[in-house]
Amino acid sequence: MNFASDNVYGVHPRILAALGEANAGTAPSYSGDGLTKQSEERLSKIFGCDLRAFLVTTGTAANGLSLSAITPGYGAIICHAEAHIAVDECNSPEHFTGGAKIIGLHGPAGKFTPAQVEKTLKGFIRGEHDPKPKGVSITNATELGTIYAPAEVKAFSDLIRPRGMKLHMDGARFANAVAGLDVAPAELTWKSGVDVLSFGATKNGAMFLEAVVFFDLALAEDFAYRRMRSGQLVSKSRYLGAQMLAYLENDLWLDNARRANALAQKLARGLLQVNTIRIPNPVQANEVFAVIPRSLNDRLLASGAKFYDWMPDSLGNAIAEDEIFVRFVLSFATPEEDVDAFLKLVAKG
Amino acid sequence: MNFASDNVYGVHPRILAALGEANAGTAPSYSGDGLTKQSEERLSKIFGCDLRAFLVTTGTAANGLSLSAITPGYGAIICHAEAHIAVDECNSPEHFTGGAKIIGLHGPAGKFTPAQVEKTLKGFIRGEHDPKPKGVSITNATELGTIYAPAEVKAFSDLIRPRGMKLHMDGARFANAVAGLDVAPAELTWKSGVDVLSFGATKNGAMFLEAVVFFDLALAEDFAYRRMRSGQLVSKSRYLGAQMLAYLENDLWLDNARRANALAQKLARGLLQVNTIRIPNPVQANEVFAVIPRSLNDRLLASGAKFYDWMPDSLGNAIAEDEIFVRFVLSFATPEEDVDAFLKLVAKG
Amino acid sequence: MNFASDNVYGVHPRILAALGEANAGTAPSYSGDGLTKQSEERLSKIFGCDLRAFLVTTGTAANGLSLSAITPGYGAIICHAEAHIAVDECNSPEHFTGGAKIIGLHGPAGKFTPAQVEKTLKGFIRGEHDPKPKGVSITNATELGTIYAPAEVKAFSDLIRPRGMKLHMDGARFANAVAGLDVAPAELTWKSGVDVLSFGATKNGAMFLEAVVFFDLALAEDFAYRRMRSGQLVSKSRYLGAQMLAYLENDLWLDNARRANALAQKLARGLLQVNTIRIPNPVQANEVFAVIPRSLNDRLLASGAKFYDWMPDSLGNAIAEDEIFVRFVLSFATPEEDVDAFLKLVAKG
Amino acid sequence: MNFASDNVYGVHPRILAALGEANAGTAPSYSGDGLTKQSEERLSKIFGCDLRAFLVTTGTAANGLSLSAITPGYGAIICHAEAHIAVDECNSPEHFTGGAKIIGLHGPAGKFTPAQVEKTLKGFIRGEHDPKPKGVSITNATELGTIYAPAEVKAFSDLIRPRGMKLHMDGARFANAVAGLDVAPAELTWKSGVDVLSFGATKNGAMFLEAVVFFDLALAEDFAYRRMRSGQLVSKSRYLGAQMLAYLENDLWLDNARRANALAQKLARGLLQVNTIRIPNPVQANEVFAVIPRSLNDRLLASGAKFYDWMPDSLGNAIAEDEIFVRFVLSFATPEEDVDAFLKLVAKG
Repeated sequence: MNFASDNVYGVHPRILAALGEANAGTAPSYSGDGLTKQSEERLSKIFGCDLRAFLVTTGTAANGLSLSAITPGYGAIICHAEAHIAVDECNSPEHFTGGAKIIGLHGPAGKFTPAQVEKTLKGFIRGEHDPKPKGVSITNATELGTIYAPAEVKAFSDLIRPRGMKLHMDGARFANAVAGLDVAPAELTWKSGVDVLSFGATKNGAMFLEAVVFFDLALAEDFAYRRMRSGQLVSKSRYLGAQMLAYLENDLWLDNARRANALAQKLARGLLQVNTIRIPNPVQANEVFAVIPRSLNDRLLASGAKFYDWMPDSLGNAIAEDEIFVRFVLSFATPEEDVDAFLKLVAKG
Repeated sequence: MNFASDNVYGVHPRILAALGEANAGTAPSYSGDGLTKQSEERLSKIFGCDLRAFLVTTGTAANGLSLSAITPGYGAIICHAEAHIAVDECNSPEHFTGGAKIIGLHGPAGKFTPAQVEKTLKGFIRGEHDPKPKGVSITNATELGTIYAPAEVKAFSDLIRPRGMKLHMDGARFANAVAGLDVAPAELTWKSGVDVLSFGATKNGAMFLEAVVFFDLALAEDFAYRRMRSGQLVSKSRYLGAQMLAYLENDLWLDNARRANALAQKLARGLLQVNTIRIPNPVQANEVFAVIPRSLNDRLLASGAKFYDWMPDSLGNAIAEDEIFVRFVLSFATPEEDVDAFLKLVAKG
Repeated sequence: MNFASDNVYGVHPRILAALGEANAGTAPSYSGDGLTKQSEERLSKIFGCDLRAFLVTTGTAANGLSLSAITPGYGAIICHAEAHIAVDECNSPEHFTGGAKIIGLHGPAGKFTPAQVEKTLKGFIRGEHDPKPKGVSITNATELGTIYAPAEVKAFSDLIRPRGMKLHMDGARFANAVAGLDVAPAELTWKSGVDVLSFGATKNGAMFLEAVVFFDLALAEDFAYRRMRSGQLVSKSRYLGAQMLAYLENDLWLDNARRANALAQKLARGLLQVNTIRIPNPVQANEVFAVIPRSLNDRLLASGAKFYDWMPDSLGNAIAEDEIFVRFVLSFATPEEDVDAFLKLVAKG
Repeated sequence: MNFASDNVYGVHPRILAALGEANAGTAPSYSGDGLTKQSEERLSKIFGCDLRAFLVTTGTAANGLSLSAITPGYGAIICHAEAHIAVDECNSPEHFTGGAKIIGLHGPAGKFTPAQVEKTLKGFIRGEHDPKPKGVSITNATELGTIYAPAEVKAFSDLIRPRGMKLHMDGARFANAVAGLDVAPAELTWKSGVDVLSFGATKNGAMFLEAVVFFDLALAEDFAYRRMRSGQLVSKSRYLGAQMLAYLENDLWLDNARRANALAQKLARGLLQVNTIRIPNPVQANEVFAVIPRSLNDRLLASGAKFYDWMPDSLGNAIAEDEIFVRFVLSFATPEEDVDAFLKLVAKG
């Protein structure tokens, strides 16, 4: 019963098999191989547009590199206060961008709004005494398991594009957002004004694999240099390309996400059967955040279940002393029996 | 017949199998897994000392991160003018160190000497108008397929350690150096004064895998932060640990290197049968650098053989207009038949 | 009637005269001149301890360089949310430190507390996923014209020194704090645990002059390199040394600050004669922050008086729609008549 | 008899007087003052074009900031191997640019050629494995006291502009170059393709003052942010504006340079009267580089004359064991009697 994170699970068998199939013979290195090239073409088809995709090994690198393409060191990126780039990546965004400032805005359910961004921008009235606002980064699905719908994404773009700012989407759980909304990937990205996407695969079945996907092709100019100098250009690149092709083939990426999302729904429904448990935010992707009694929390952990508590900041005062805010992450590989068994434990109270 | 690089070959079957074996069940992420911990212990045994090892995905990252632990942004690292950190990694060392200067010294056969370093240090007479010399980086095996023996390594350390400088070894082909010298890993590293080693595995059979190995444990303090902020802490870390364990098990790393080195010897012997071919440097690892007639070069390439020409700078004037300096890299996986077939082609003149 | 800032006033005549006196003949450059050396000795006497002082031209550089000596790029500095380093220096701290994170804590009257710092540190439970806390920076006098007394400063040090963190004091208005408290400079700095001080002179009568003063001498090692590489080592350094000597001679620095502080008291007393005006924080240095009617604000500005409004965040809800929060800065050179004339204008209502 | 550098001399009386005149009353800070604005307009007239000028306090900052506008951290700047940015500024260019590589090319008399740049660019054949060439920086007058004529400057621009690269001129001794050539400033800069100029004043009579002058106005966008975040936006900016206006008024800058250049000619002529002395390069600005007997060198120093020896690298083998390569710098303020007295000493042999 491991709900600690989606990254505690392994690699999907079809992706693992693809690594083996890619192993024969020789192949050009440093992204010169055929699999890497095909993976960009495949992404282009899936998104229905011309794009540039660069494969990297971690989500932190994908985010940092993406941001480095939209802000210089004297710029600022506005995001949610609990965004991964704000609180989970050491000072990686600062490292990749050469010192840009990450400005986190608070908001319920892991989301913030264009109105908040607008208010923040109005505060930048002192020229170079402030950093220069260069971009907004939204996480979709969010850190709190919620989703920005296309119209919500577009509202950010409508605000900032006229000001010359760029829109980044941290899609570490992009598949879960697409699956949750059941929309075309294009709708959630470039058609809604996203300029660059961190397209995650690791959490959803790959081994080490993320793609930085540029819809604004001008931002991709020189990006190969950025990736190289950050040590993210792998030599045996075919093994990234192979993962990506397998991940995309026959909609594996969406099937995996749908399964994880469905398990999250099942878990949420089960939890809500218990009087003492509340689920403050809508469950829209593969994560369930719940307020549960501390006594229950302790018993569940003692039973061997694995999950983490979460900063309750976003809950305001809506949590009592004897309660705790916890997170359950469901994965493409979480056994359904584990959910069932866990719910039985919970039902015991 | 692909002699372009060791990274055009795939992953050793035992390492690939290890990835599959590691795939079952859940595991803590971000280096908290057992395989990663075991790999550090295994390295400790192999080197016969207490050490700290951090797994990363590329050699460029391993080098950049290593250097960041030994120099601040106002420092300088002295290395060979053809070192990977000097000419093959975009501005990665500058990026990881926050702007340190990489000072390349010329020398035959890919090697430079403590005497050259001493002369360079004597030029740093103007205090802060120069950068502060903080370290020396040597590549072993070198970029020209030669090897520094333990005594040579120690001579660098003897010079710089009293000055508070640190010694880094870029061991992208460390296994080939150990195999070539037939010495204990300890002899070539900490016993000879190496403070931090980029321990390469990718070129010698792994998929994406290098370790930053600290013999000077004080340098390892805070290194986890450095790795994280550069986007090099992978979430599903068990797949790095698994590779490393398989790479080290039963001396696979040395067997692979020995095989590649032996093929290099065979190729070199064959080439020297031809009057018009010269091999200016000793062949000590898994690379053969040769001066061959341009006409032969063209015929070989036309026959489908793959290899690159190399900067002839290190040869001085010892190359004619109708000659070309070329590199052949042998790998653990290079088919011996390819060497035989290639030598037949060469023999035809 | 210019209360916009202390930097709108010129240079004190004795400092200007010192520049002329320093102009004769030749002098070694790049801090090798006698005046620069003497200025360090003079500071040492004034602070009653061994110290290292480095002269630079701006407060932003003094702060950024100070912080660069106490945090690497993966570290964090905790300060007040309205500190100059947090909101007034573009991304300068990030630039000088190579990407460290500046964490601003809110608190009334421009001050925050060790208890807040302690709570923040308790949140750093995830190792390298967070930055590593490396220092605290307090501003004295604060941005809101209040002062930390020695015991308050020491409380910060008592908390962080055992954790290996360093204490920086942004003393852009250090003289005003010393004058306001009437304590020995030593009491407010190293005796209270300050490790490095940005010792400001520009706002208090110099032309371009700040000193980075290290009480923790180990931090000063290599600092000359930091200053050089940031372009802050001036060639004709004698003109910085001359300013500093004149600034310190016969307590000019304290006399200037006392005068400015006294004018602030006078202004505050006058403002408080008016019913509709409130001064929410104690006036302890050379700044007066007041809540005044917007109608009065408009009339005063229309009369040619110069002053800025200030972010009312720190006031909570204690400000009405028809009120505005404004700042008046008094300088060593502000004519007393201007204060009198301004108070007359105010009294008219 | 001080020929050590132009920065050992003080400030020109008219510039010092201007500081006093600027001291009355209040003035907007942070470049908002009238003098700063007028200085930009004056520069615009002198160069005969629209331009943007930003005042800073040191030449190192002017260079670093200039380069930061033309190269990102993954780029490369090509310059002479003895350029100030290559060997005299610690790692300042790397700091300001976020890690760009400075590539120094050797050449006689402090000069290099477009042909050398072209050859270097031809070596950049490996895409992102190399840095991306973004600019060329030439120093005029050079570090060896020679001058690039307009046609020589234009030849660099003709080569690199079609490749999207920018041309920077380090004009720490720009006035000496203009005076030496007796050309219009426009001819030597934007009409010859210079995109950004470090316009030096400190060495030629100012206290602390350089201007970053953009002829390519697009490069100036956001430059105010760059200056601010590097701690180079001074608060009491009027004292930079005042210096610049006085420096430019009535051609003081050119008169100063002409005087220094003339003294250099006089010194050179005198030295050449002595059989044992050679002057290998043309004396075109305010510096004289000579090969003199070591015995003479020792006697001159013993007599109290001040000057430095110089790296003899650029001389090839043209220097004997008992000779030394030395530099004499003449300034606007060097007493002519000192030159006469020195030549008498020299004549004694």
